[in-house]
Parts: sequence; C-alpha cells; structure tokens
Amino acid sequence: MDTMGRHVIAELWHCNTDKLNDISLIEQIFVNAALKAGAEVREVAFHKFAPHGVSGVVIISESHLTIHSFPEHSYASIDVYTCGERIDPNIAAEFIADALEAKNIEKVEIPRGKGHIRI
Amino acid sequence: MDTMGRHVIAELWHCNTDKLNDISLIEQIFVNAALKAGAEVREVAFHKFAPHGVSGVVIISESHLTIHSFPEHSYASIDVYTCGERIDPNIAAEFIADALEAKNIEKVEIPRGKGHIRI
Repeated sequence: MDTMGRHVIAELWHCNTDKLNDISLIEQIFVNAALKAGAEVREVAFHKFAPHGVSGVVIISESHLTIHSFPEHSYASIDVYTCGERIDPNIAAEFIADALEAKNIEKVEIPRGKGHIRI
Repeated sequence: MDTMGRHVIAELWHCNTDKLNDISLIEQIFVNAALKAGAEVREVAFHKFAPHGVSGVVIISESHLTIHSFPEHSYASIDVYTCGERIDPNIAAEFIADALEAKNIEKVEIPRGKGHIRI
C-alpha cells in the first residue's frame, strides 16, 4: 500500500453533553462514520472514564478514527486518518460532528506519508 | 479534566523493516513508550495486515498513541496525543523512533483543546 494518507484533526465544541458521555452511542457513531466513508472496520476499542468522558478508537484497513470526549466542557477531540486516495476522511469527520451535535468545529487536514509534514 | 492537550505527529522513515512487521514487538514498544512517558494504559488494540503492516493503538488515561507501519516502505506513521501538562508526548515519540531504528524523523506538535488549531 502507498504511504500517502490524509489526517483530519477536528475540535468539536458545544456538543450534546449527554451524547459525549454515552460510550455505546459513541462507539456506534464511530463505526457508522467509518462505514459511511467507505472504510473497512478492523478493531474497535472504547473506554469510559469516571466520573465522565469517553476515549476510543476504530482501527480501519485505511488507518484510524479516534475520540476523546470531555462532557464537562461539551468538547470532543477527534481524528480521522485515512490512507490512500479512495476515502475522504472529511465524510467521517462531518458525520461525527453532526451526530454529536457540535455547534462549533475547528478542523485541519494534514497530509501524511509524503516526507515533510505540511499543514 | 482540562481539555488542553499536546498532539505529536511523527513520520518515521528508514526504520528496521523486520520490526515494522512484528505485531508483538510493536505492541510492547507502544505500551513501554506510554509507561516511559508516565502515562496510564487503559486499552490496547493492534491489528496485523496481510501480506505486511501493523496498525494499532494504546489508549491511555491521557489520550492515545497510534501507529500504522508500512514495512515495504520502511515507514511508520505515529501519533502521540497527551492531555494535560504532566506528560510530554515527545518522550514517547522519541522512544518509539529509537526502538524502530528510524533514521529520518519528521515531527510536528499540535496543541489540542484550546480553540483554534495552531501549528
């Protein structure tokens, strides 16, 4: 496989607080986001923190999706990294932002696997 | 927990090809990298691809470490993301680069959870 990849880093602010604390829902959203983008899901690992917050990852054939949620700040930090040119990571990132009802999104896309890291 | 985090993105080139294809070794390197940086390991998920390549994640209390290896290109793409100010993600990234014998490292650090994404 070619090393070339696209890595979308997104900060989701003013999300739905209840959703940010629901590990089952977040896992379902992330698997669906991967499938929606056309990715192949390989591994799923999520963790619930006390008293609140969820961290998790979906490993896909094309790389990964991750989340760290901070319900107390209505904030989630997400990454969608896809190798190759077939899949657009923005499709998954936007699906997740919509599902978590983010009102304010900061997003950058970083090319990976091409030598110098250019933003 | 405060939303502030540090996300190190690193491209490791000219690594040891055999190590890049050894899922057990990579998992051990990543857990040790997390511990070396002072992080608390919560979940571990790695996947071996055919005919070659390993993807994986270590979820830590402070966020995550990920890898995607491309032995055929002697290349590994890694991320080390740590929330809070207690842990320096560069310690883990450098530990991994050393362990995989990377001869050429491209690295950037991205502040997370602070509003605008500044590189």
